[in-house]
Amino acid sequence: MHDIVRKVVSGRLERGAATTELSADRSGQAMHDFIADLYPICRSITGEGVRETLRHIQKYVPLTTCEVPSGLKVFDWTVPSEWNIRDAYIKNSAGERIVDFRACNLHVVSYSVPVHVRLNLEELKKHLFSDPDHPDVIPYRTSYYHAAWGFCVTHTQLLALKEDEYEICIDSMLEPGHLTYGDLRLLGSSSEEVLISCHLCHPSLCNDNLSGISVATALAQYLRNMDLRYSYRFVFIPGTIGSITWLALNQAHLSRIKHGFVLTCVGDAGSPTYKLSRQGNAEIDRAWTYVLKQGGEPHTIQPFSPFGYDERQYCSPGINLPVGSFMRTPHGKFPEYHTSADNLSFVKPAALRDSLDRAVAAIDVIENNRKYTNQKPMCEPKLGDYGLYSTIGGRSAGEYQLALLWILNMSDGATSLLDIAERSSLPWGTLKEAASALQSAGLVR
Amino acid sequence: MHDIVRKVVSGRLERGAATTELSADRSGQAMHDFIADLYPICRSITGEGVRETLRHIQKYVPLTTCEVPSGLKVFDWTVPSEWNIRDAYIKNSAGERIVDFRACNLHVVSYSVPVHVRLNLEELKKHLFSDPDHPDVIPYRTSYYHAAWGFCVTHTQLLALKEDEYEICIDSMLEPGHLTYGDLRLLGSSSEEVLISCHLCHPSLCNDNLSGISVATALAQYLRNMDLRYSYRFVFIPGTIGSITWLALNQAHLSRIKHGFVLTCVGDAGSPTYKLSRQGNAEIDRAWTYVLKQGGEPHTIQPFSPFGYDERQYCSPGINLPVGSFMRTPHGKFPEYHTSADNLSFVKPAALRDSLDRAVAAIDVIENNRKYTNQKPMCEPKLGDYGLYSTIGGRSAGEYQLALLWILNMSDGATSLLDIAERSSLPWGTLKEAASALQSAGLVR
Amino acid sequence: MHDIVRKVVSGRLERGAATTELSADRSGQAMHDFIADLYPICRSITGEGVRETLRHIQKYVPLTTCEVPSGLKVFDWTVPSEWNIRDAYIKNSAGERIVDFRACNLHVVSYSVPVHVRLNLEELKKHLFSDPDHPDVIPYRTSYYHAAWGFCVTHTQLLALKEDEYEICIDSMLEPGHLTYGDLRLLGSSSEEVLISCHLCHPSLCNDNLSGISVATALAQYLRNMDLRYSYRFVFIPGTIGSITWLALNQAHLSRIKHGFVLTCVGDAGSPTYKLSRQGNAEIDRAWTYVLKQGGEPHTIQPFSPFGYDERQYCSPGINLPVGSFMRTPHGKFPEYHTSADNLSFVKPAALRDSLDRAVAAIDVIENNRKYTNQKPMCEPKLGDYGLYSTIGGRSAGEYQLALLWILNMSDGATSLLDIAERSSLPWGTLKEAASALQSAGLVR
Repeated sequence: MHDIVRKVVSGRLERGAATTELSADRSGQAMHDFIADLYPICRSITGEGVRETLRHIQKYVPLTTCEVPSGLKVFDWTVPSEWNIRDAYIKNSAGERIVDFRACNLHVVSYSVPVHVRLNLEELKKHLFSDPDHPDVIPYRTSYYHAAWGFCVTHTQLLALKEDEYEICIDSMLEPGHLTYGDLRLLGSSSEEVLISCHLCHPSLCNDNLSGISVATALAQYLRNMDLRYSYRFVFIPGTIGSITWLALNQAHLSRIKHGFVLTCVGDAGSPTYKLSRQGNAEIDRAWTYVLKQGGEPHTIQPFSPFGYDERQYCSPGINLPVGSFMRTPHGKFPEYHTSADNLSFVKPAALRDSLDRAVAAIDVIENNRKYTNQKPMCEPKLGDYGLYSTIGGRSAGEYQLALLWILNMSDGATSLLDIAERSSLPWGTLKEAASALQSAGLVR
Repeated sequence: MHDIVRKVVSGRLERGAATTELSADRSGQAMHDFIADLYPICRSITGEGVRETLRHIQKYVPLTTCEVPSGLKVFDWTVPSEWNIRDAYIKNSAGERIVDFRACNLHVVSYSVPVHVRLNLEELKKHLFSDPDHPDVIPYRTSYYHAAWGFCVTHTQLLALKEDEYEICIDSMLEPGHLTYGDLRLLGSSSEEVLISCHLCHPSLCNDNLSGISVATALAQYLRNMDLRYSYRFVFIPGTIGSITWLALNQAHLSRIKHGFVLTCVGDAGSPTYKLSRQGNAEIDRAWTYVLKQGGEPHTIQPFSPFGYDERQYCSPGINLPVGSFMRTPHGKFPEYHTSADNLSFVKPAALRDSLDRAVAAIDVIENNRKYTNQKPMCEPKLGDYGLYSTIGGRSAGEYQLALLWILNMSDGATSLLDIAERSSLPWGTLKEAASALQSAGLVR
Repeated sequence: MHDIVRKVVSGRLERGAATTELSADRSGQAMHDFIADLYPICRSITGEGVRETLRHIQKYVPLTTCEVPSGLKVFDWTVPSEWNIRDAYIKNSAGERIVDFRACNLHVVSYSVPVHVRLNLEELKKHLFSDPDHPDVIPYRTSYYHAAWGFCVTHTQLLALKEDEYEICIDSMLEPGHLTYGDLRLLGSSSEEVLISCHLCHPSLCNDNLSGISVATALAQYLRNMDLRYSYRFVFIPGTIGSITWLALNQAHLSRIKHGFVLTCVGDAGSPTYKLSRQGNAEIDRAWTYVLKQGGEPHTIQPFSPFGYDERQYCSPGINLPVGSFMRTPHGKFPEYHTSADNLSFVKPAALRDSLDRAVAAIDVIENNRKYTNQKPMCEPKLGDYGLYSTIGGRSAGEYQLALLWILNMSDGATSLLDIAERSSLPWGTLKEAASALQSAGLVR
């Protein structure tokens, strides 16, 4: 089935690739700049906007672009026709563009069929969407699977419309073509994979989900320079149909995926949120929970629910992968969600950086979560003889000393370093260092 | 063993049966009126008061009256002699009835043996019971299994008694006869049964337990008009000895009982309380817990304890049925408990109605708690193709949409709708409707 | 291996043994006096101070003193040389003892090698230990396994030292000899043992751990007069090396130990603390938790951690005994810890008494925690027929009545009295009495 996919660009960096390491900038500004570059592009679940976005990511990481033909059956779904748009407007009788796609691509309902008509106000209003609760923002609407057309406007704009004859034009194309996504594999020493997924189907919306694309790209750059235990699979896909398509095409290899998470809405100023996978206590769930708890700052661990982004598909009952979702404020819980207010000023460099740091920390746990076996389980070994104990006694023990004792006490070959971390509440770095010292001393294996 | 029971009236409605549907009155007044009709009758664990009460219930539902002979051995107990009383009083030397059974039947200790003597004050006091902490109420006392006689009076009354020669008369009979109870079976499509039990042995006490009798009768009327999955067994029995007798006589059929609850003290103004069965997480326990939690109002879930009403017997270790207890303020926790203050004004129509509504809701959960299997478990099905998704995307999902997703995600053939309800916290009605729609669409089976 | 141990004094009471029953004094003063007697002795992990301490305990209970030779390999450790000290001082050039071991034995770092030198201030300071955070106390320091010498002084003292030529003398001996510990076995009807352990290696420090030695001695006296189900093993050992040595020498018999706890820091005014064993829900853990909870006063249940006193060894992964630790304020959590301020006024008679009472209560649970089987499990038995129910009904049940019902309801042969105690929250004494009455009545076995 996989050969149906045309790999247009296989694992290459764009010519004139950026030398910027997004993850090297501690301020997060480089990730914000990356978002700014992608912001103007009109993306949807298919089309040139997606391709242009992937080409930009390829300046940073050697992404493979995959093209899946319209009409392909993927589980209960069908890959849709490809949608492209050149222009769209509503002109009043004076010939003025009172609603202009070129000013803001949210103005057009995504997947609007082409139209060029003249309508009076009443007829026009049947095709207009606004949000009376937030009268000054343009809402984001779609009609992927129902042939329709429409415009999104601020509610203020809607109320100001007068009786008139309006010229409506949507210069779009909805024709058989391809669904496009990006796929990046970083090879580790094991063929077992960690899946990191973000949707790239939204037009000019920053937190949802240019933030996820930006953090995923930075994370991929960061991991590319590391010695990895696991292999990493990054997918940049249109929401829902993209993950369904990817899962359908990669069914044979899903058992490789041992951990994963979705990155969405990771750039707003809210505190971090991790939503548990359907399994609820998968290693990735426990790693994220530990990392956020250790951070010591406010955070939320959400139970799994079948509503959200692509974790819906990864966690559907027949797939059931250990894939959670990392966010800051969850989608739908911030008023700017799916409106023109989800703009460049809504996402913050520091928040992007913080999201990247936490993802790195969670991956550090997964990468180093091993099970050790104490080689001297009868009473404590005499740590001083191995250079692991201070010579003058009577003082309190430090965290490193405690880490040594915890690892020795719990390491029975079945208990992992993450189990010990959860129980002891010690920092991961200290535990890693202590485990390494004990291993060097031959006290654990 | 069962043929020892004489069924006096088998499943019939009394001649001149009431046409009132107690459950049809949303105000609860009809249930309160029902209580008022029964209030004056002097009930005990046997005797004419019980029979008269059952005849009244038979005006509403086709109850079977069962008569079990005195002396029958039931487990560790023996069916006692039948007690009846015509009159009782204490007269002072002026011949005035200063304590009069005809004024309030609580004045006589239940099961008092006949007596007609003259006593001085000191001797009389050995037979008087009052409550110094609540000096203006008549307490309720019994002596079922120890031949004795006594009067209950207010403490104020007791203190006012002067030295005198008193004439004491209790015109009672304690002779071999029968223990009487009511049994009503509503047939559902399955022979599996739901047991609903209430004690009817208390004299003029309203919350304890004319309220339970009233709500049980209304519930039976309500269910009688429904298509039922389970069969329902209502028992109106004297406390302790009644449930023990019923269990002893029905041992062979107890395995039919899949769910059950006791109804006591369901008419006071307090918030609802459900006491878990001994099993603690039986389906009925979870149904009541979910229903009270969904109600969103204050309520209490009590852990099981072996003290209470007839759940003590249903949950004895050799019986161990999944039978909980629904109450408002638990017995012994309201000051009016077992006193003359547990009268018609202490029980409230609205509280009776609320109790009925919650019982109906718990039964609705039990009746409709099925396990479904998702027929398209690989990713989400394309709900729009089945008419189960709105055509314009980008907006938040409503509860119905969430219910569809939860049922699809969790329905693996082993997870019940109640499991899903507990996890999703969605309303039962929405889940029922969504399950039905998914079944019609062929998406679950 | 055990014959390597020389038993110097086997199970005898010292000549002129005290007749004082420490546990008989409700005020705790007798236990405090016992501490005062031991306070001046300079103890360490080996040596005459330990022997003198054990001889004092032998005035109260028939302790066996065991001598283990230096150089013996015990698991990963080696029994160290024996350390004894006669005198130590620092003299200024005027010949004045400005630091004097005879004034306070904490002044010398425990296990200091002998030294007699003249040093200037700078050289001397390399061997001085003080605590800048608590400038007026002498800290306690040791150097058991690293040949060194040093003095501990108040920080005020340190700062006051002037440039001078100092004469330093430590008249100690560190030579092959023995490690000494005390072992006391009280025989019960079963050979299964309860282990009670306290460390005796600290010099003039009262809470840590003369308090533990005192409470353990009082507890042993108390139990000596009882009919016991279990056998009891009290060990008075140097910390760490003592428990490791004892475990190494008693490996073959460890499976006898069914319960146990360490007693440390049980004399300060803080509220009681029980630290769970590594198993976490061992019977002894549950007994202590129940006892402290039933006490109704503030208390702490600490999860297991591999840092602490000798429970570290008893709960090492290859040993893993059900041994917790009872304390008041845990070591390291009070500012007086390991300083000269842990003196006779820091430990309180009432706190010692309270610690003893709670240990007695926990042991009472262990001793009487049996599993019963209800002989009449079908409904409740008619308790009145066995004299176990009041004859006049209608009143609330007391705790004893509830205890009867709980035991009957739960006793299925697999559920223990402690299980019932935890679930019912009834007092242990009431449950014991009720279980005994039910057994006498033939209702449980």
